[in-house]
Amino acid sequence: MKTDLDSLMQARHLDALLVLGNAEYNPPFTYLTGGGHVAHATLIKKRGEPAVLYCNPMEREEAAKSGLQIHLYDEFPLSELNKEARGDAALVSALRLQKMLLAQGVQGRVGVYGTTDLSAAFAMLSHAAPFLPSVQFVGETREDSVFMAAMETKDQAEVERIRHMGQVTTEVVRLTRDLLTQSPVRADEVLLKEDGSPLTVGDVKAQISLWLAERGAEPREGFIFAIGRDAGIPHSVGNPADLMRLGQTIVFDIYPAEQGGGYFYDFTRTWSLGYASPQAQELYRQVKAAYDKVQENLDLNASFRQYQVLTCELFEKDGHPTPRTVKGPLQGYVHSLGHGVGLNIHERPWSGLGADDSNRLQPGVVMTIEPGLYYPEQGMGFRIEDTYHVRPDGVFERLAEFPYDFVLPMKHWKP
Amino acid sequence: MKTDLDSLMQARHLDALLVLGNAEYNPPFTYLTGGGHVAHATLIKKRGEPAVLYCNPMEREEAAKSGLQIHLYDEFPLSELNKEARGDAALVSALRLQKMLLAQGVQGRVGVYGTTDLSAAFAMLSHAAPFLPSVQFVGETREDSVFMAAMETKDQAEVERIRHMGQVTTEVVRLTRDLLTQSPVRADEVLLKEDGSPLTVGDVKAQISLWLAERGAEPREGFIFAIGRDAGIPHSVGNPADLMRLGQTIVFDIYPAEQGGGYFYDFTRTWSLGYASPQAQELYRQVKAAYDKVQENLDLNASFRQYQVLTCELFEKDGHPTPRTVKGPLQGYVHSLGHGVGLNIHERPWSGLGADDSNRLQPGVVMTIEPGLYYPEQGMGFRIEDTYHVRPDGVFERLAEFPYDFVLPMKHWKP
Repeated sequence: MKTDLDSLMQARHLDALLVLGNAEYNPPFTYLTGGGHVAHATLIKKRGEPAVLYCNPMEREEAAKSGLQIHLYDEFPLSELNKEARGDAALVSALRLQKMLLAQGVQGRVGVYGTTDLSAAFAMLSHAAPFLPSVQFVGETREDSVFMAAMETKDQAEVERIRHMGQVTTEVVRLTRDLLTQSPVRADEVLLKEDGSPLTVGDVKAQISLWLAERGAEPREGFIFAIGRDAGIPHSVGNPADLMRLGQTIVFDIYPAEQGGGYFYDFTRTWSLGYASPQAQELYRQVKAAYDKVQENLDLNASFRQYQVLTCELFEKDGHPTPRTVKGPLQGYVHSLGHGVGLNIHERPWSGLGADDSNRLQPGVVMTIEPGLYYPEQGMGFRIEDTYHVRPDGVFERLAEFPYDFVLPMKHWKP
Repeated sequence: MKTDLDSLMQARHLDALLVLGNAEYNPPFTYLTGGGHVAHATLIKKRGEPAVLYCNPMEREEAAKSGLQIHLYDEFPLSELNKEARGDAALVSALRLQKMLLAQGVQGRVGVYGTTDLSAAFAMLSHAAPFLPSVQFVGETREDSVFMAAMETKDQAEVERIRHMGQVTTEVVRLTRDLLTQSPVRADEVLLKEDGSPLTVGDVKAQISLWLAERGAEPREGFIFAIGRDAGIPHSVGNPADLMRLGQTIVFDIYPAEQGGGYFYDFTRTWSLGYASPQAQELYRQVKAAYDKVQENLDLNASFRQYQVLTCELFEKDGHPTPRTVKGPLQGYVHSLGHGVGLNIHERPWSGLGADDSNRLQPGVVMTIEPGLYYPEQGMGFRIEDTYHVRPDGVFERLAEFPYDFVLPMKHWKP
């Protein structure tokens, strides 16, 4: 949680955090400011002190919404910086950074963060270093950064934002299901649009994007709506030209975020329209059984990885390859069980076999459970995914509800 | 243009370019790959040679669409890197970078680019430097980077993508105009929705976002739809709660991009619904006269800045403050005349009074012309903006057409 930042900084010997870039689409910045339209700002947080924000005068009002102490870049007039730097633009930015850090009394190890223009930031930091002998700039890997560690547990306000995205997500999934099941069906089992032409994956995806936009959400990292063989390849987002047909597995994995770069939700259902082969029904049953077994056995503070082991055991009993039995399997169970969800679609805790025991289902964690089975050569894939909140009282709360039906009856077609 | 990259690298003494991050929402990456869903890749371009792309095996097919030579990260197995780095994740990424650069024979000054996670990139570059004694990593300021210089002129394929966004933009502006002019009007001159409640700026903005999504465009940097006093503040995006009323200036500045982080278009019209005060009509006339005068005088290869000077002269004759007469004016003409448009909404050439003569209207430039006048305390603002392409034959072609009417007659209201 945000309140853990100071102790996390202490553990990493970080004396200050420097966050660069926009307030939007920039998780560490959004985390400390709450978002908003601030295009160019510099956030400085010393350990044990609240963050301060430097911004352009024009963006002062928007920046003030963060509740942080606001400073203006104008405190260090550009005309003087230009004179000092003799027109070297990289040096101008470096001198301004130097003056901001000195004004804030920053010394020691300073972690640098932000989704931003690497070239400009690297130029600024490289040029500033010689002027700041008492400062050492430090980078951290994405997975193990102080922000990723703090973000691993959510406060109630964050959970409510994720829950709201869950409502939006399941509303859109419901609309999608109704669109499919109410479509007319041609003699060759292809779904049709109102104008009589075939309904394509591209048509459905365009409609889903619209429904998300209407609800203040955006498919910031895309989404997966894949049928048949594509459903059997976990990272295939779906081929827009594919026709919607009866009796084929459809994997619909949707992970929208609040517009402007906010919190994500992550959700998957697998459907087969009208009917399904006995083999597909059996594989779906196995995925659902694994999902149920994991969900029933979730324990507060347990290692997330142990449920990946459990899922592998279950699928191995059913005769499927898993990451335990095959290195980099291409069929069977081919991924890990879940991941944390927040301002990043994938964040701590991790559940892979390589994840260590610090990845625990501790109170405040919001994470997915998403077992799946994939047989691309047989033209089918299956995944069920929901997002859960580990409540302080030890209850694992699913943040949005949606039925688990696999075969969806068609309104205008009978088996 | 892309074909200028090698000579631009030569002029900056850059031996290679290293671009990190996603292929989407990352202008240098999109520029060299054409976009596509590649989440984690490393692009290396040596001077005088085509770029090569390292990616994960799972993203190989998507990466191949770029037409670049593809290598897989697997060439340097993670298990071996982990052993060599003794589990230090930052070192793992640094060692992999070292091996990629050595495999590609990269030496000398290597420019680093990409909109990406600064912390992870900085950690990787800092850790890699000691292992690469013959390489020096270099950052460039955003405005003067080798990419910004190359992007300043567009090839025909790029122009056609911008032109298409211009068509989308003007279609959406037309729909917006029709929505407004066909709305019922209450006795107090407030516009109403179908259900009889007042039409707000927020309602109009939500509808505009939907219309963009339907056309494969996204308001990636937002857009401005501001009425009254907000229209008089150039960077105010509009207050969602404001009611739509007759007789107030509306500044509608819309700059959507292709979905996935592609090319932008930039466009503004100013409207007053039903009627306008004589003062507003006169100010609009002055803005339109300045726009026309600039447009008629555009000369191939002229300095962009000279048209900013011309605009200031025209507005000064009309008695307005300008950036020539007031430092940082808050009313009158308060910004610069235009800017380049491409994969960045603002890019070279620049037209501000501080821009040097290298910012020229050379063949291949795509830029905006956008004079405006702002009087927030009088509750009004005006701007007209179109995007132009400087054709190789010297013609300045406006990339989309839309009428310049200021007062829009209302269907259900008479003055």
